[in-house]
Amino acid sequence: MPETELILYDLCAADQDRRFSPYCWRTKLALKHKGLAFETIPVSFGTKELIDFSGHPTVPVLVDGSKTIVESFDIARYLDATYPERPTLFGDEKAVALARFVSTWSETSMVFAMLPLYVMDIYEHLAPEDLAYFRETREQRFGMTLEQFASDSVEKLARYRRVLQPLRALLSHQPFISGEAPAYADYCVFAFFASTRSITSCKFVEDADAVNHWRLRMFSHFDGYAANATGYPV
Amino acid sequence: MPETELILYDLCAADQDRRFSPYCWRTKLALKHKGLAFETIPVSFGTKELIDFSGHPTVPVLVDGSKTIVESFDIARYLDATYPERPTLFGDEKAVALARFVSTWSETSMVFAMLPLYVMDIYEHLAPEDLAYFRETREQRFGMTLEQFASDSVEKLARYRRVLQPLRALLSHQPFISGEAPAYADYCVFAFFASTRSITSCKFVEDADAVNHWRLRMFSHFDGYAANATGYPV
Repeated sequence: MPETELILYDLCAADQDRRFSPYCWRTKLALKHKGLAFETIPVSFGTKELIDFSGHPTVPVLVDGSKTIVESFDIARYLDATYPERPTLFGDEKAVALARFVSTWSETSMVFAMLPLYVMDIYEHLAPEDLAYFRETREQRFGMTLEQFASDSVEKLARYRRVLQPLRALLSHQPFISGEAPAYADYCVFAFFASTRSITSCKFVEDADAVNHWRLRMFSHFDGYAANATGYPV
Repeated sequence: MPETELILYDLCAADQDRRFSPYCWRTKLALKHKGLAFETIPVSFGTKELIDFSGHPTVPVLVDGSKTIVESFDIARYLDATYPERPTLFGDEKAVALARFVSTWSETSMVFAMLPLYVMDIYEHLAPEDLAYFRETREQRFGMTLEQFASDSVEKLARYRRVLQPLRALLSHQPFISGEAPAYADYCVFAFFASTRSITSCKFVEDADAVNHWRLRMFSHFDGYAANATGYPV
């Protein structure tokens, strides 16, 4: 009997090989960490009805046999609970609690500073029929036009690099966020580098930055899984 | 034979009961967590020679019998390694690694946004002979006068509250940073609330903020240990 194959609904650009959702990247990296085989089904903003069956409005949506799981952090918890014989994504319960802080930090402080730097790159990689939806929903969220949100990019890049200071200080102590080897907290943050590489040539950090050294270690992890995805040079 | 008593050198204001070092507070809370008896010796900027024996320029300095340990994170690691039969401050190795991220976040992003809000309160609580040292070293660090650093306090308070967003999001999921009960990651952050209470009436967060609810839980922990220290109302 073949191993059960899991199915992940994964956000794509006009070029379906460009997968730019950081939250889907978290799940792909979590599945690689667990050593689980999976297939992805590309979903664009225009084909969102593909995930209607889940009852949830956003990807990632993971289907494991008869079960459907949503929300990236909950999916990671599900994988550890369902496949406990495989490498843990978290560690003990205190480590789960603290990984959630890394997750909330990356979803608030970090992405808020990072998104202005690549939002126009997303826009330029979308299918024509997705442009209006993207512009309308994001401009409502930001309270300004995409172009205003993306303006002053030099200053905003400097600000983003300041926001990375806690990560930089951490990575001067240890090779990975999770310690000696990467685990879910690393995937939470790295997902933003893996996903944006699909649609922008911006590398966000300076070559000599400890965050960049970690970023390159993460791209080469799992035999270069993230580096081999369709995108701009690592 | 009585239990070994540990000695902590702890930064104080002109009023020696006002202890305003967040890094010393981390150690005091860590010692409470381990259930270890300890005494503190107050050190002011003017009596720094009291810690010369340690070979380290800053408090906290912990003396445990013949051993001297410095740097708050290293002290916490030492306590877990030396007293493994007592409640753990960290959990497993992944949890240690992630607690260090909470530590670096609070020492960079959080304190950078928080310090302008209370730096003048520190100044006003120092002994007359410490004022020049404090002003000189801090103005050099900030690259501006204390008064400039503390200016625009309304805007800076709003900015500080935005910086707390990852903590706020986390504490909407779980009662403590470390999960169901507080541990070292909680002390890392709460130390900034416990220490500043000794010299300022500013509470930094709104009453209804999830961060405030956690802050109050932390003040009442260990039978109100932090709440009972000399300071302004909690």
